[in-house]
Amino acid sequence: MSESQPPLGGSHKRLDAEAKITGQTRYVGDLSLPGMLHAAVAMSTTASARVRSIDLSAAQDMPEVEAILTAKDIPGTNLIGVIFPDQPLLVEDRIRMVGDRLALVAARTPEAAWRAAGAIRSNVEPLPGVFDPIAALDDGSPLVHGTSNLLHTYRVIRGEHEETSSEAPVIVEAEYHIGGQEHAYLEPQACLAIPERDRITVVASCQCPFYIQRAVARILALPLAAIRIEQAPTGGAFGGKEDYPSEPAACAALLAHHTGRPVRFLYHRELDLQVTTKRHAMVVRHRWGADSDGRLLFAEVDAVLDAGAYAGLSTVVAERANVSAIGPYDVPVVRVETRIALTNNLFAGAYRGFGAPQVSVAAEATMDRLARKLNIDPVEFRRRNLLTNRKAKTCTGQVLPAPVLAEACLERAVEASQLFVAGDRNPSFRKRGTGVAMCLYGINLHRGGQFLDRSSAVVILQPDGSVIVRVGLTEMGQGNLTAIQTVTAAALGIDPEQVQVWQPDTTTVADSGPTVASRGLHTSGRAVLDAIRHLRERLDPVAADLLGCDPRAVELAGNEARVADGKSSIPFPKVAEEMAARRIESISTGWYRSEPREFDEETGLGNPYSSYAIACHVAKVAVDPDLGLVRVEHVAAAHDVGRVIHRSAAEGQVEGGIVQAMGWALTEELKLDKGRLLNPGFTDYLIPTSDDVPEISVTFLEDAPGRGPFGAKGLGEPSFIPAAAAIRNAVCDALEVEIDRLPLTPPTVVLATDPEQPFLHGLP
Amino acid sequence: MSESQPPLGGSHKRLDAEAKITGQTRYVGDLSLPGMLHAAVAMSTTASARVRSIDLSAAQDMPEVEAILTAKDIPGTNLIGVIFPDQPLLVEDRIRMVGDRLALVAARTPEAAWRAAGAIRSNVEPLPGVFDPIAALDDGSPLVHGTSNLLHTYRVIRGEHEETSSEAPVIVEAEYHIGGQEHAYLEPQACLAIPERDRITVVASCQCPFYIQRAVARILALPLAAIRIEQAPTGGAFGGKEDYPSEPAACAALLAHHTGRPVRFLYHRELDLQVTTKRHAMVVRHRWGADSDGRLLFAEVDAVLDAGAYAGLSTVVAERANVSAIGPYDVPVVRVETRIALTNNLFAGAYRGFGAPQVSVAAEATMDRLARKLNIDPVEFRRRNLLTNRKAKTCTGQVLPAPVLAEACLERAVEASQLFVAGDRNPSFRKRGTGVAMCLYGINLHRGGQFLDRSSAVVILQPDGSVIVRVGLTEMGQGNLTAIQTVTAAALGIDPEQVQVWQPDTTTVADSGPTVASRGLHTSGRAVLDAIRHLRERLDPVAADLLGCDPRAVELAGNEARVADGKSSIPFPKVAEEMAARRIESISTGWYRSEPREFDEETGLGNPYSSYAIACHVAKVAVDPDLGLVRVEHVAAAHDVGRVIHRSAAEGQVEGGIVQAMGWALTEELKLDKGRLLNPGFTDYLIPTSDDVPEISVTFLEDAPGRGPFGAKGLGEPSFIPAAAAIRNAVCDALEVEIDRLPLTPPTVVLATDPEQPFLHGLP
Repeated sequence: MSESQPPLGGSHKRLDAEAKITGQTRYVGDLSLPGMLHAAVAMSTTASARVRSIDLSAAQDMPEVEAILTAKDIPGTNLIGVIFPDQPLLVEDRIRMVGDRLALVAARTPEAAWRAAGAIRSNVEPLPGVFDPIAALDDGSPLVHGTSNLLHTYRVIRGEHEETSSEAPVIVEAEYHIGGQEHAYLEPQACLAIPERDRITVVASCQCPFYIQRAVARILALPLAAIRIEQAPTGGAFGGKEDYPSEPAACAALLAHHTGRPVRFLYHRELDLQVTTKRHAMVVRHRWGADSDGRLLFAEVDAVLDAGAYAGLSTVVAERANVSAIGPYDVPVVRVETRIALTNNLFAGAYRGFGAPQVSVAAEATMDRLARKLNIDPVEFRRRNLLTNRKAKTCTGQVLPAPVLAEACLERAVEASQLFVAGDRNPSFRKRGTGVAMCLYGINLHRGGQFLDRSSAVVILQPDGSVIVRVGLTEMGQGNLTAIQTVTAAALGIDPEQVQVWQPDTTTVADSGPTVASRGLHTSGRAVLDAIRHLRERLDPVAADLLGCDPRAVELAGNEARVADGKSSIPFPKVAEEMAARRIESISTGWYRSEPREFDEETGLGNPYSSYAIACHVAKVAVDPDLGLVRVEHVAAAHDVGRVIHRSAAEGQVEGGIVQAMGWALTEELKLDKGRLLNPGFTDYLIPTSDDVPEISVTFLEDAPGRGPFGAKGLGEPSFIPAAAAIRNAVCDALEVEIDRLPLTPPTVVLATDPEQPFLHGLP
Repeated sequence: MSESQPPLGGSHKRLDAEAKITGQTRYVGDLSLPGMLHAAVAMSTTASARVRSIDLSAAQDMPEVEAILTAKDIPGTNLIGVIFPDQPLLVEDRIRMVGDRLALVAARTPEAAWRAAGAIRSNVEPLPGVFDPIAALDDGSPLVHGTSNLLHTYRVIRGEHEETSSEAPVIVEAEYHIGGQEHAYLEPQACLAIPERDRITVVASCQCPFYIQRAVARILALPLAAIRIEQAPTGGAFGGKEDYPSEPAACAALLAHHTGRPVRFLYHRELDLQVTTKRHAMVVRHRWGADSDGRLLFAEVDAVLDAGAYAGLSTVVAERANVSAIGPYDVPVVRVETRIALTNNLFAGAYRGFGAPQVSVAAEATMDRLARKLNIDPVEFRRRNLLTNRKAKTCTGQVLPAPVLAEACLERAVEASQLFVAGDRNPSFRKRGTGVAMCLYGINLHRGGQFLDRSSAVVILQPDGSVIVRVGLTEMGQGNLTAIQTVTAAALGIDPEQVQVWQPDTTTVADSGPTVASRGLHTSGRAVLDAIRHLRERLDPVAADLLGCDPRAVELAGNEARVADGKSSIPFPKVAEEMAARRIESISTGWYRSEPREFDEETGLGNPYSSYAIACHVAKVAVDPDLGLVRVEHVAAAHDVGRVIHRSAAEGQVEGGIVQAMGWALTEELKLDKGRLLNPGFTDYLIPTSDDVPEISVTFLEDAPGRGPFGAKGLGEPSFIPAAAAIRNAVCDALEVEIDRLPLTPPTVVLATDPEQPFLHGLP
């Protein structure tokens, strides 16, 4: 370890790596208990209907079946939904979505459970459905809930619009159709509910144990204190385990509570693909204008999100999309309208980027369109319009503090991209292009969610100088355990291997909100630093006694407690041992909450976020125009991260984000037919394979400190956001066309260059 | 709930009762994980030998065997032992006890594991052993460790002895042989170790998770922070799960660490009886004197404890026995010598009462002897010699604060006993007797262990007003979870069902020491009150805001926050909700440590404990003198408890203590042959059945507050201590003999009345 706050920015062994590599990590599927039952669910196969009756008789007598439950068996309130309680856990009368739950089964084997679920018959009256979000907003469209399919409208209104938009010398218009996306985490939804009469433990693959705690408490009508949620090691999440896991957890908990036996609910992949939330499909209409020098004059954005059948998190996704609509560009006049449409499609939810990737694809496509129309190089066009230290006003009028690293990110990514030398290419991939895209991403929760924006930590110094840490934010592969380990070690000046961060558990810390919005390290790290500050109020005087100095002169570094003048030191474990010998409390809590912010909901003006991260991705692609195949060869990424906490984990996040965005941009197509997914499997829903991964170069800029621990900023979502836009722009550059539809599947690419292509008629 | 600090002293539903009754509680035997292995152990069958070699070859190739480990496979230090590290986990060269571990096996089934363990052959050179603790102290006796079998000597030296002891008008002498005792918990030793490469979780049936944490860390050479001990629901302990569980836990952890798979180690009953620690057998010699008015003048006590082969906790058991040797009596001159002898018997350990029951049997027998010699009624003789507000000096010269409830306990128990009316009796039980005995028990840890005497708690207020509590002291059936629930509810003025106390886990609180010495409620309750005090520093201002009053005027009672003047109030959950809305930290830690005390090791004078509890038991027995059978008909118990926290749990403790003591007094005989237990099963080792349970009347005296929460004192051990002495005295009263041997098995009883009885020669 070097002397400057080691191990910050290093690449020491990840806390959970070896156990995962050797298979010792136990995911929910690796847990089993004697007497455990298996859950299955009987679901609607149509998207809109009224239930006349549910016939359980055939299922009830099937072997190994222990319980079949319907809505009437719920002791609490039959409603889930993080924000709007509009979704019943079990259908009472109305079906709004394929996959709506009619009944739950617990049986001694998963096979028996699914067999019984399959034998449950429902008598339903079909109702008309609506599957197009734009059509859903028309008067007279079938209603999904209540009296309107328009769930909510967000706006940003900044500057004098009428004048500017009519006078702009260069104007482009476009309508982008951006597809949804499956999270495609390695581990499908999974949980295990273990009842103890008046209380229950749920071990769940999840991002947000405190959401599950509330959902289960509501369904079972038990106090929150009686619901323990342990986050199981979680095999990927990406937002797909933010809101959704409350549903299987509530199902398993209900069955467990009812049977008195543990109930495990493992989704198989087809089920997971068919019924869980997806990234919102969006239609984004643009009308942007610039002057003849290539300076943006105005931006008009009209976005419609397809929420699907339930509100879920759509409002908060939309509010982020709304304020992210114009990227890190200086635009004097802004009109954004973001509407949410309810449809009978699968309901959409959280997904890495939370609405920002969709609007970024549109914004960056429009930037390229304008650059082409102005005949300015796209990089140069961006340079002229980027936010800077002097022009630092965001979409919502929030003024970013200096330094603003937008231009630095652009230049570093472009430089890195220029260094790329392609190897041998398949000659069919004869078209080449480069695309650039950027993002300005509000780190942490939107102002509308700031009531959730707090975080709790517990730090327990052991008598041997090692340290146990508990936080409320989760590890889902992104590295939060290791990040917190690193922050703790750096703050105490000890080696990371002396710090163990145990899996989140709602009975160990206070409600810390969700692990979303790239806030994991930010908020849990700040809480840990607060806990360490409290601990040091008791530790430093002990160290000072041993060192014979003033407590204020105690420094912790190099596994030692030292006097600030550097003349004397003692090993850190000696201080811990002495604290234990003196019976001084060696546990402390830490707390973090973000500063309140002002934001006007009507105009969309104000400070939706406390700080922002900027990123630039430059993609190089090769295209086979005949087959419509795209090969991403290189992505250069430059990220304004404030401070690197763990280098290889940070690099891994960027690499993962880019590959996931590449899948969304190119191959991942949700084929829906009347709300039913036609391709619920990875043979038809195509995610990138390791063979598809491009060469990726990652640059971190650490000159603009954020509000996280040691100045760190969130990285989880910025790593995803620009990549798809950059790839879209690179493909358009290669083919010299505009494609306004994502994903860029082979038919889409071929049709873009040859709209009359005879074999592809009828394809999307 | 009534208004005076409800629910204190009530009998609301125990937190863990329903889950236990319905079988939902999962003991370690109810846990299983995919891929889990089962542990077994190859043990020595002789008590003293040198190991030449261990032959694993036959076992290694047996089916389903995954690992066989010996001492050389231990990555850390091959030593266990809470105080003296004199015991190897796995034998390296010397066998000192039947059951010493030679090798560990992990296999896919318990049967395969034990089959392989049975196939391990050891080549040993027998060595002479020593099995009598008195003989062990002779020069030239075979040595168990080092250069002496005398592990330690404790003394109390108070008053001018030579003069008094030669001048006393009435002197009695006796030598008591008090047997050991098996804990006979319902659930044998059990643990499950779950490895995660660099760290490990052990779920254990235990009293002292922090002891296990240290033991496993030492064996595996890992930081303490990397060792997580979760206390499983524990089916009885009584001291038998204080020190001992570190051994199976270290074995399971070693096998799990080595194989990378979970390893469960369940003791079967025979193994548990054969190798686990027992209550110390003791030989206690008395020479006590009184004046002719029946006032004690001096007491000379010479006690020898049979520690068995390892030091274990023998020193702390002996130090408690030492200062407990004369009971709650006022004796001007005291000479106590308590020696610990190492032998090759099974090693002794912690057991409810911790040495006090043995010396109490002797003290109370001698009191009766003196009373008889003086021709004074035993109750009256005690009355004349009890500690009182004015004569309050204990054995060690510690002065008890008033009120001293010794006489009150005596009178209340005697009164209750006199109310007993026996039903129809079996005419063979023709002798009847009454016995009285008392105890003065130092609550909490002895001064020698005060460095362990601290406790940590975490309290987390939920947004719905329910409360999660974490403490470091364990539930083993005694009711600590419910006691802590009650204390929390009383302190916050809310209903107990709004409070959930989750199972102890070393990663949730700081090291809180062992759950022993009747300190569970005392220390964890005090820590919880401290945590609530901290929580209220944040909660009261919020309540005050809502109430429009000064924070200092806020009172919590009746599920409300109230202004002290009683004029306005709001529901408690509203305050919790408001705290959550304001994002105020709703978790706090609490800490408790006992006051330091002065005690002189040389003279045994000073303050070994911070406070004491007094108890009196009066037993009525019927004896069949021909068959030597004793039937305990009634026990009246009066206990100085400071404050009843949960009435039925407190009553249950007293009832359980009395029945357990009855078994020890009458039927539970450890038959040892050269260190080997001949009766390792409940067909031969006879514990009381429900049919044997006497009528028990319990009186609690609440006039002398202790230092626990709301003035509570520990009750777990005082409930055991006087009963055996009272039963012994009752049997001797019935038969008009002195019997100085425990247990009072039929042969012992018959031989006492008929020493020439021809059929019983050689017994026991």
